[in-house]
Amino acid sequence: MSNTAASFTPIEKLGRKGLIEKIAAEFGRHGEGLVFGIGDDAAVLDTKSGGHPLISSEIYSEGVDFDLTYTPWNHLGFKVISMAVSDIFAMNGKPEFIFLNLSLTNKISVEMLTLFYQGVAHACSTYNVRLAGGDFGASHHTCSVAVTVYGTAGVPVYRSGARPGDAICVTGDLGAASCGLMILLREKRHFETAEQTVFEPDLSPFEYVVRKQLVPEARFDCIESFRASEIVPSSMSDISKSLVSTLLEMMDSSKCGCKIFEAALPVHPETRNTADELEKDIDTFVLYGGEDFELLFTLPESQVKTFADRFRDFVVIGKVEPKEHGIKMLTAEGHLMTLS
Amino acid sequence: MSNTAASFTPIEKLGRKGLIEKIAAEFGRHGEGLVFGIGDDAAVLDTKSGGHPLISSEIYSEGVDFDLTYTPWNHLGFKVISMAVSDIFAMNGKPEFIFLNLSLTNKISVEMLTLFYQGVAHACSTYNVRLAGGDFGASHHTCSVAVTVYGTAGVPVYRSGARPGDAICVTGDLGAASCGLMILLREKRHFETAEQTVFEPDLSPFEYVVRKQLVPEARFDCIESFRASEIVPSSMSDISKSLVSTLLEMMDSSKCGCKIFEAALPVHPETRNTADELEKDIDTFVLYGGEDFELLFTLPESQVKTFADRFRDFVVIGKVEPKEHGIKMLTAEGHLMTLS
Repeated sequence: MSNTAASFTPIEKLGRKGLIEKIAAEFGRHGEGLVFGIGDDAAVLDTKSGGHPLISSEIYSEGVDFDLTYTPWNHLGFKVISMAVSDIFAMNGKPEFIFLNLSLTNKISVEMLTLFYQGVAHACSTYNVRLAGGDFGASHHTCSVAVTVYGTAGVPVYRSGARPGDAICVTGDLGAASCGLMILLREKRHFETAEQTVFEPDLSPFEYVVRKQLVPEARFDCIESFRASEIVPSSMSDISKSLVSTLLEMMDSSKCGCKIFEAALPVHPETRNTADELEKDIDTFVLYGGEDFELLFTLPESQVKTFADRFRDFVVIGKVEPKEHGIKMLTAEGHLMTLS
Repeated sequence: MSNTAASFTPIEKLGRKGLIEKIAAEFGRHGEGLVFGIGDDAAVLDTKSGGHPLISSEIYSEGVDFDLTYTPWNHLGFKVISMAVSDIFAMNGKPEFIFLNLSLTNKISVEMLTLFYQGVAHACSTYNVRLAGGDFGASHHTCSVAVTVYGTAGVPVYRSGARPGDAICVTGDLGAASCGLMILLREKRHFETAEQTVFEPDLSPFEYVVRKQLVPEARFDCIESFRASEIVPSSMSDISKSLVSTLLEMMDSSKCGCKIFEAALPVHPETRNTADELEKDIDTFVLYGGEDFELLFTLPESQVKTFADRFRDFVVIGKVEPKEHGIKMLTAEGHLMTLS
């Protein structure tokens, strides 16, 4: 997990042009659906899918959105692509092309970038998308990564389509990524106070939660199952910030209220154990933890069973209600509380 | 030209969501060609033009790509959009949608962002494009602006299509933007040593060059004339870095050489005067200065006159030659020099 690369080739040795050529050679300039990619003023796309074009674009800053102390470069490469494509899946779409812009400080070496792009390549192959463009710039203090993803959707699904009576569903489990972050931050504090030179803590008891934090996988499997079963959810979003904030946004857009059941929220055993070890309330992670990149969606009750026959990794956590019911959770102790 | 706003509302007072809602309200969520814009996981585009989709994406860092000492926020907003759409024009395309991601430090106020988005809105109206999405993030030390532009082209024009015999043409004039930058940097040094509190130098003798640096206009007029005259240049690129680097890239991609004529290079009188005042060789700016955002293109000789009847603001600066001739310039003194 160390970021101390064996050798350090300054980027200026290759130069911006050399760097672009290296990446272009690895990822290719042409190919399926891409008329012309890296190396001209803009990428020329050739999309034959005929659906609605979708675009999502985000920016991540060193020290705020990622920490290079404990984030291996290949994991960072994988994660930024996962985060990008997750937004397209969340619209019921198929991601096709990625554009990646990096602002780099002089602390970054060619070796680090090579690792980063290995992670990017792994993610591109996982999600069947192509790196089609981007650029490198310089930065004085902190690195930034800006990712744009282009995709298409036959039937886009918005946050605003939830209707009273619909089941509220969530894929996978919740809270693991933020729990993993707490572990990494704890180990970073140990590392800093112990004055070690290499960050190599034993993270094996926290493998699942750390993995969910460092290399989250976007839920293309769920979207593929929607397509295969010809089911279109009434509303959908990915859980990038937290379950509660995503739920609030979705219900606000849909002009609905909802009731969710605390006992139904999916939690991985390791997340529970880690929360215990950290002496934190598990709800902190499950309700308010970010970066799980699971999908939150609503389905008419009648379609839940049909979909469950096709796709197993989701649970129903509650029900959409009329707006005046508010956003409520029935706790495990039987209390009805308002979420905010 | 001061960036000292009358009042300073911290961004945390509005919050990320409040900020997005403010922008969404100003720019609208729906509209022509935009099924759903700001506020969901991704923007859903509805492009009916049927051409090839084009995407270009770039990132700009405070202190490297822009300097907030002398850049008014509305100018910065206008300029980042100009730079983005320029890449689409350079492919012979029509820009349609903009995605804007900002990483902000706590030195930035809501008032500054309001000004920034005024510049963005002005540019969007100038180029007939729509702001369709984006996000805000936090940054510890420096601000970053990442811009993605989506456009379409019936016939995309690459850097690689120049053929021996073609005329090499350039729009507008060269060197003004970098000359303007030198003036701004000189005034910034004066400002810093004079310990003034407000940066308000008299820039009126340098109005043209400073304007080209701060609020460059992308050459949509040239692209519209290509369309109107049904002329497709054999190769094209925008001059964002410098004439020489753009020419080298174009000839390299086209596997050609070229000869340009120093005497034919278009220079604005104010650029020449400013270079004199700065005691700099005018060639430093004209050949090697960046950010002019003029278009460099090649045309078969036979089409030059036809195009000149339609569009006046370009000149022929040289001729494409076979590769073995190299990249040469005939100087005003009659010497043949190799450009690099």
